[in-house]
Amino acid sequence: MILNDTIVALATAPGSGAIAVIRVSGPEAIQITSPVFKAKNKVSLENQKSHTLQLGNIVDGERIIDESLVSVFKGTRSYTGENTVEISCHGSPFIQQEIINLLLCQGCRSAQPGEFTLRAFLNGKMDLSQAEAVADLIASDNAASHQLAMQQMRGGFASEIQKLREELLNFASLIELELDFSEEDVEFADRKQFQDLIFKIQKVLNKLIDSFAVGNVLKNGIPVAIVGEPNVGKSTLLNALLNEERAIVSDIAGTTRDTIEDEISIGGVGFRFIDTAGIRETTDTIEGLGIKKTFQKIEQAQVVMYLFDSSKIKNEKLSLTQVKTEVEKIKNRFPGKPLLIVANKRDILTEEEQDSFKQQIPELNLISAKENDKVEELQEKLLGFVNTGALKSNDAIVTNSRHYDALLKAQEEINKVQEGLNIGLTGDLLAIDIRQALYYFGEITGQITTDDLLGNIFANFCIGK
Amino acid sequence: MILNDTIVALATAPGSGAIAVIRVSGPEAIQITSPVFKAKNKVSLENQKSHTLQLGNIVDGERIIDESLVSVFKGTRSYTGENTVEISCHGSPFIQQEIINLLLCQGCRSAQPGEFTLRAFLNGKMDLSQAEAVADLIASDNAASHQLAMQQMRGGFASEIQKLREELLNFASLIELELDFSEEDVEFADRKQFQDLIFKIQKVLNKLIDSFAVGNVLKNGIPVAIVGEPNVGKSTLLNALLNEERAIVSDIAGTTRDTIEDEISIGGVGFRFIDTAGIRETTDTIEGLGIKKTFQKIEQAQVVMYLFDSSKIKNEKLSLTQVKTEVEKIKNRFPGKPLLIVANKRDILTEEEQDSFKQQIPELNLISAKENDKVEELQEKLLGFVNTGALKSNDAIVTNSRHYDALLKAQEEINKVQEGLNIGLTGDLLAIDIRQALYYFGEITGQITTDDLLGNIFANFCIGK
Repeated sequence: MILNDTIVALATAPGSGAIAVIRVSGPEAIQITSPVFKAKNKVSLENQKSHTLQLGNIVDGERIIDESLVSVFKGTRSYTGENTVEISCHGSPFIQQEIINLLLCQGCRSAQPGEFTLRAFLNGKMDLSQAEAVADLIASDNAASHQLAMQQMRGGFASEIQKLREELLNFASLIELELDFSEEDVEFADRKQFQDLIFKIQKVLNKLIDSFAVGNVLKNGIPVAIVGEPNVGKSTLLNALLNEERAIVSDIAGTTRDTIEDEISIGGVGFRFIDTAGIRETTDTIEGLGIKKTFQKIEQAQVVMYLFDSSKIKNEKLSLTQVKTEVEKIKNRFPGKPLLIVANKRDILTEEEQDSFKQQIPELNLISAKENDKVEELQEKLLGFVNTGALKSNDAIVTNSRHYDALLKAQEEINKVQEGLNIGLTGDLLAIDIRQALYYFGEITGQITTDDLLGNIFANFCIGK
Repeated sequence: MILNDTIVALATAPGSGAIAVIRVSGPEAIQITSPVFKAKNKVSLENQKSHTLQLGNIVDGERIIDESLVSVFKGTRSYTGENTVEISCHGSPFIQQEIINLLLCQGCRSAQPGEFTLRAFLNGKMDLSQAEAVADLIASDNAASHQLAMQQMRGGFASEIQKLREELLNFASLIELELDFSEEDVEFADRKQFQDLIFKIQKVLNKLIDSFAVGNVLKNGIPVAIVGEPNVGKSTLLNALLNEERAIVSDIAGTTRDTIEDEISIGGVGFRFIDTAGIRETTDTIEGLGIKKTFQKIEQAQVVMYLFDSSKIKNEKLSLTQVKTEVEKIKNRFPGKPLLIVANKRDILTEEEQDSFKQQIPELNLISAKENDKVEELQEKLLGFVNTGALKSNDAIVTNSRHYDALLKAQEEINKVQEGLNIGLTGDLLAIDIRQALYYFGEITGQITTDDLLGNIFANFCIGK
């Protein structure tokens, strides 16, 4: 894939802001922008050094479209690895469109989604996994997903894979060389050393493949099913859980949370709450359907939170025995799944009543969502279900299912090589499996790509990146 | 008003984009940003020249928040006229918030709406009317409002006012000087020259005050009431009118237009369409209310478009006599208001039928909205109601009601001065009226401001500008 035209797109979020940035990249980026930009100090854009800014007017003939700051990035020093101009204009959608239209008339093409990053990859500014991390970084909405994307963008495990790939490639070449001398029965590739390398690769692959379960969850948020009847205080509890990080969620996006099916960030980790209708038995057949649905939702969740209203116990509309029965039902059906049992509205209970509750259900969490009482303890327990250790130790974590698939396939091929070594397979057959493993490694870092693969990856980017 | 702390805000549109720009301005802008920015090439931000860019990491201690491009603008060369740093980071709302939080921790304060531009004004980078034009520019959504804002931002009529103010100030000083020598009966201020200046000022004021009617309409869009029963094709007509500029409206904001109460841009001028229920008489009392409402809406509009469905005439569900009666009713009630009579669905009429329509209602516009037939002629007629001549001739146009009010008050004072001159008023009394006129001139350009006035103006800006 060779891209040698010049592209343009809005790089900042769409809509109205104080300023907006329009990005132009390609061999002609500076030459195309230069005639429509009149610098205040009369200099020509083409004579400017890389990484400098000029104030001036964007003009269409005599008509001034905007007063803008224009920055120039040259060749390999730019994000894309080719000449780039960034126009920082006033943030009116009308002006954004006028400037983009002007540049299209001057010979630019509208950038495809992710095309700036695709060019950065094609020009060797980053490997493929780093390019993919850029999209993850932009999508990151909590500390965990942000850290994972940052780690991957800075090299992450891809550099480790890259190193192993080179060692493996070296052995592959030696083994293939042996084939040329097959009559002479020589061994260029030291079988012992090769065996050691295969062990090392297997170890790394196992570790990376195992990390995906954690990585996937940290990236996409931990699904928590809330099991509870209507009006037990589900929304209030979510608002309370959200409390400390409300600023982040609401200040930026103007988010209002009406439904309880939402993602909130606790201790930097995203939790996706899934509302269920509870599993109370009734004679009503529609309710029966509701229970079936609840179980389906628990199935998808990684943690279950069983929530009931203490006042109902007090009013004898519900008994703790009923609660225990329902909890047992969940435990029997999902034996391995972490479960939190939560009694809301503990503020209406006496100390004695609370003690009695605890006696009957020792693992009970008594809280008051409305009073924000004991909610912090609940947050800590939720966080306790997440393996944040991996995050803290800064170990490589795989978060991308494309990488995961490639790693699984590489593992399979490496295991075949291992078997082949054990049974003393001939070099020509060995070489085929090694080449396969090399192929999957290359898919991760981008040494091996197809237009289809690149198309799939970059189609998910936003335009302008 | 002195602002000597350092402020920070997101400058680009809120939400997710490829990149976002965070702006820091104030005496400590560079010192505050420097410790949290690690440039790739190890340089310190504090040693960088104005108008240069550095690539590096934004860090909170050991933690890397983002890889960002950081630009430095020094002192009077920046937008605000004080040291400014712009951080171009990845466009995730989480990253935006993390960086802003970090800078707040470092000693920045969150910027108030419009505070960057307020500082630009206070630091003498622009006069008040130019600062106000910045907000208009960002809000501009068609060619006309954009051109008016650009003109005002580049000086517009404020520089003319400013020049007249200086001349007037000169005379005021001379007249006040005469007061010191009142015993000697001298005249430092040549009364003939002064009279000429007053004439000149009156002429400019009249022209500017007259321009407001056009300016206000061009800035805010021309209100057009569409009078017509449901299903006569109002939405289809609006879509057809919108046709040529659809790209601008839909591409940027992802606008979908469900209601016909909307603003569309025709030939670069905004038209606000106001839906009405028509004025057909029925026995139903609720309908009577509907007619009253329609008349209220016509009252607010500047142009009326009466739309009916040709097929109803053909099916004899409506007669042209009825149409004429309704049109007469509107004309009688709003004699001065421009009125377009439009028959939709002309494609179902024969040539003869169309001729007969025209014979009965000579000013009739026969169109087919669905076929986009004769819609262009309608657009031209709508544009004909707008005085775009003023726009083309590049005359100064007042669009801001605050300026309009100040101009009216200045006019009143100047007229008093004129009268005073005519009746040979003494210098001390003359001077009072001149000072009042000078005051209102100064309010426009910002030589005279109060904290209240500034507060009102900048409160309407977005944060980050």
